[in-house]
Amino acid sequence: MNSPNGKIAEIPLPEAEQKGLAASPGGFKIFNRIVDLITNDRMQLINVTERINEIVRKSGVRDGIVHLQSLHTTTAVFINEWQDALLHDVRSFLDDLVNREEYYRHNDPAHSDCERKNADSHLRGMVMGQTLCLQVRNSVVLLGTWQSIILAEFDGPRSRSMSIQVSGI
Amino acid sequence: MNSPNGKIAEIPLPEAEQKGLAASPGGFKIFNRIVDLITNDRMQLINVTERINEIVRKSGVRDGIVHLQSLHTTTAVFINEWQDALLHDVRSFLDDLVNREEYYRHNDPAHSDCERKNADSHLRGMVMGQTLCLQVRNSVVLLGTWQSIILAEFDGPRSRSMSIQVSGI
Amino acid sequence: MNSPNGKIAEIPLPEAEQKGLAASPGGFKIFNRIVDLITNDRMQLINVTERINEIVRKSGVRDGIVHLQSLHTTTAVFINEWQDALLHDVRSFLDDLVNREEYYRHNDPAHSDCERKNADSHLRGMVMGQTLCLQVRNSVVLLGTWQSIILAEFDGPRSRSMSIQVSGI
Repeated sequence: MNSPNGKIAEIPLPEAEQKGLAASPGGFKIFNRIVDLITNDRMQLINVTERINEIVRKSGVRDGIVHLQSLHTTTAVFINEWQDALLHDVRSFLDDLVNREEYYRHNDPAHSDCERKNADSHLRGMVMGQTLCLQVRNSVVLLGTWQSIILAEFDGPRSRSMSIQVSGI
Repeated sequence: MNSPNGKIAEIPLPEAEQKGLAASPGGFKIFNRIVDLITNDRMQLINVTERINEIVRKSGVRDGIVHLQSLHTTTAVFINEWQDALLHDVRSFLDDLVNREEYYRHNDPAHSDCERKNADSHLRGMVMGQTLCLQVRNSVVLLGTWQSIILAEFDGPRSRSMSIQVSGI
Repeated sequence: MNSPNGKIAEIPLPEAEQKGLAASPGGFKIFNRIVDLITNDRMQLINVTERINEIVRKSGVRDGIVHLQSLHTTTAVFINEWQDALLHDVRSFLDDLVNREEYYRHNDPAHSDCERKNADSHLRGMVMGQTLCLQVRNSVVLLGTWQSIILAEFDGPRSRSMSIQVSGI
């Protein structure tokens, strides 16, 4: 959770265990997992890098692709440096990019039956994107020194799911 | 087309049929299709979810990846909820994000031979992105309950093409 | 480099040669390369299309996917038309989207040990994204007539690396 001073604590991510492995006779394989999370704030950034690396290790894929997809329109997945000061700037920037206080039809009972008043969350999720594709090299997600994988909650607190697919040889 | 009250009618998508299947001896296969569309408005949002699912079903791929690419810089492909009120907000937001009335060199005959005056369309396409990669699970595109695949026209009316590649086992 | 009139000269890209090929018995193969670049300006746009096509040709992959990832948070990879006037508009737009002069905690020694004062570069890289996935068809990257692959430097001059993975059959 985001404490007032911008710290983000690790959140336990109970993984929905699945039989996730499909393989072709030729050695190409696909490994699927769902990661479930509970978020604590309306806007929250969560570092999922280690979690993704655990899944890649379990997959048995040495070289290939890992595809991440958050299954919710009011979330996003992207890359940035994981530094408290910068994460504070990221939240401020996204707050400014989409002004929550403006008029939106999605928040207006005359036009919409959505009671969450979350048009801003939808627009943030749309701009940042809910999918991310990364290379797997030597059984590890390829990332630069300062790159972390960040899941963004834009309409929490909620229960959320990400689908992870590792494919390759 | 977008009617004045924000409704978006289904557009017939005549598909350019192609021999699209390539397969390796080991069971990994790739299936390619081009989807052609005619758009009706300068900015228009089109729900292509069902169309993509049809192609995935035809591909014979059970587990893998579907990659979508719009072949035009002044378009985009992304995910959001398909709700009339929200689609109206999306168009307003993208209109505000890139102000069409500002000065752009791309629209200035002194600097550019482009006669479409579509710098704003290029910038919207660039921010939103022209590619999207999604998981295929059990012969269906994996999407959350509220996630639809949206093709955005930013410089219509035009004839447009998307290339769809389904790969996996 | 960007000359005052907006021209962008080709930059020599010494490639870090690697043994990059992994193959499964079934014909599916993966080819990896690192492309190294030296950038010359704080914000700079570089057309890497031809470079990516060279790597795809070398890979021996006829049909599949090419995945590009810049290994730095203060860069991005995306698609747009490669036209001088438009590239000038792209730089102006990104300058306006994230105002460098605003207060950012990441630039404040009271909150951050980063001495580059590059919060704006991080935010631009985050919005535009550091990865791009494109289709390979007949040993060529699939791109529309006006689509070029652009690497954006947001905190140069620097030495930068992109990882390219070509996979398929």
